[in-house]
Amino acid sequence: MTDEELLALAIAEARAGAAEGGIPIGAALAQGDRLLGVGRNRRVQLGSAIRHGETDCLENVGRLPASVYAGATIATTLSPCDMCTGAILLYGIPRVVVGENTTFYGGEDYLRSRGVEVVVVDDEQCKAMMRDFIAANPQLWNEDIGEPG
Amino acid sequence: MTDEELLALAIAEARAGAAEGGIPIGAALAQGDRLLGVGRNRRVQLGSAIRHGETDCLENVGRLPASVYAGATIATTLSPCDMCTGAILLYGIPRVVVGENTTFYGGEDYLRSRGVEVVVVDDEQCKAMMRDFIAANPQLWNEDIGEPG
Repeated sequence: MTDEELLALAIAEARAGAAEGGIPIGAALAQGDRLLGVGRNRRVQLGSAIRHGETDCLENVGRLPASVYAGATIATTLSPCDMCTGAILLYGIPRVVVGENTTFYGGEDYLRSRGVEVVVVDDEQCKAMMRDFIAANPQLWNEDIGEPG
Repeated sequence: MTDEELLALAIAEARAGAAEGGIPIGAALAQGDRLLGVGRNRRVQLGSAIRHGETDCLENVGRLPASVYAGATIATTLSPCDMCTGAILLYGIPRVVVGENTTFYGGEDYLRSRGVEVVVVDDEQCKAMMRDFIAANPQLWNEDIGEPG
């Protein structure tokens, strides 16, 4: 599966989240050509404090042996926050495809310092989704990144 | 609420987890004398990849304004893994009480480098729970910290 194909699945998740009234951030995890699963930010939908795009994806995929994570790539529509950065490190996922990091610049430098390969696509669809969402819901966005509303 | 009282609540959660067949790690979050909530590792109980002690606690507490996290202390029976370290950073929780860091040394240095106060109690009950659990369940423990089984 190419980075573009994996990111396209993450974008589809983000769009599904937006359609549900949620924060439009999605993620997808693959091992080579095998899709392991997808997820999306479900703070609003589930009233959750920990279901970001990447963590929802990891939860949907379920418990895996370390050997599977070690060969996996995770795509996320937005640069990962500290929590999702930590989840990627916990499981030793060696490669992260980031849709965009203009809206929010997360733990990319820390990931790289810990040996993770980070590829930033700078995708226009990802940026437009977040721009539209934040313009309409500034307080919800601030809550999602731990900032005062 | 003192650090000892908050850690005692986290230990009670860890014991409840052990009684359910789970990994005996618990957490508790308070703002001054107000207990916000508790949680425990529920990897086994929920088949979860993201419900560690601290993240389960944050999820049980639910969505909070940044101002509440900013005045909070989280107690955890075991030094926080990378994911839980990141969750603490995401929400700007300024103080962490760690039951023990002998069994596992997590993101304490990184938390301190980001301005979080970390207090290590070195509690014998916490160490004994993990020692007994790991002796009986080495593979489950390795899965929990992202290591090969």
